Amino acid sequence: MRNRRSIRKYKKQPIPTREILQVLEAGRFAPSGANQQPWTYILVTDSELKQEIRKEAEAVEVSFHCKAPKSLKNWFKKQGITPQKSFLTEAPALIVVAGCTKVPYWLESTWISIAYILLQAESQGFGTLTYTPSNTSFLNKLLKIPKDHQPVAIIPIGYPAEKPSPETRPRKPLETVVHKNKYGSNFFKVAKIRLA
Amino acid sequence: MRNRRSIRKYKKQPIPTREILQVLEAGRFAPSGANQQPWTYILVTDSELKQEIRKEAEAVEVSFHCKAPKSLKNWFKKQGITPQKSFLTEAPALIVVAGCTKVPYWLESTWISIAYILLQAESQGFGTLTYTPSNTSFLNKLLKIPKDHQPVAIIPIGYPAEKPSPETRPRKPLETVVHKNKYGSNFFKVAKIRLA
Repeated sequence: MRNRRSIRKYKKQPIPTREILQVLEAGRFAPSGANQQPWTYILVTDSELKQEIRKEAEAVEVSFHCKAPKSLKNWFKKQGITPQKSFLTEAPALIVVAGCTKVPYWLESTWISIAYILLQAESQGFGTLTYTPSNTSFLNKLLKIPKDHQPVAIIPIGYPAEKPSPETRPRKPLETVVHKNKYGSNFFKVAKIRLA
Repeated sequence: MRNRRSIRKYKKQPIPTREILQVLEAGRFAPSGANQQPWTYILVTDSELKQEIRKEAEAVEVSFHCKAPKSLKNWFKKQGITPQKSFLTEAPALIVVAGCTKVPYWLESTWISIAYILLQAESQGFGTLTYTPSNTSFLNKLLKIPKDHQPVAIIPIGYPAEKPSPETRPRKPLETVVHKNKYGSNFFKVAKIRLA
């Protein structure tokens, strides 16, 4: 959990199918609202299909970046985030995760399943990223996903070709996100505790 | 991941504060949209406060169960789920997770963080459950959570007082949730692979 970082550059080397299935197997064990397991994983390894996905994704991102508020534009600039999504073709595989919208808590459950996938991939030595295009309907078309299933993320997966340093994604200190009994009560003052 | 089960019965024995903070520390390391870390954790250990939460939660559930469609009512009955939420007072602690709604992908990010918490708790030997009341605004009031933060789940945490068998929460087989390149293409036929 601590070591995992989002990876944007991948080696072209493909991942053995059995290893990817092992990663997806983890997603299947996530808990879900009313045990409905609303998740579906479409594993995309076909080069042409990856090209098409990238083309469509970049088109929606260009339009999104144009309309973005100034503060977000500045943040994108600072982070070096552009509408270009090269990881969509460079990663040897993409896991497109969709959720069945007819099911209660489908979105929440599907994101727990995504977390399981990210952590399992990390433990097997693979890099991943969760990327949600600002509009996902092109994925329904390209991958023939039924209308009652909404794509929620594309997870590129592969051997990492970069090793981002932790400093580039600093975390809020624990004491600012934990409260004791009421919001605003500093936990560390209340509990008189210090974590290492 | 495979072994974790949602726990509805807890021992009264409290969890050492340091151990709970370790669990929350995991949540802090979840990835989040634009690294905005929209999560907030309110740790409730106060008995009176837990009583109040239970009372309010049961009131919204009674109203929800009354209005539920027949199919859901039948499912509740089959699963033995009633508006009674005894785990809210029996568990030694409740982690109320809220997300800052001003942030892009706040709900998705917060649920990844919840998954990290569930798995970390499991690895430390604690039982957990994610329970989302059908209306959460009473939590804003009781715990003084600001309006721009939406409570998304209550996670009771404690030593398990039950050991549910895996059969009571069967999973869909992997081949029914994984597709290759297009939705509907049976992965296992395409890849000619069998997992153990």
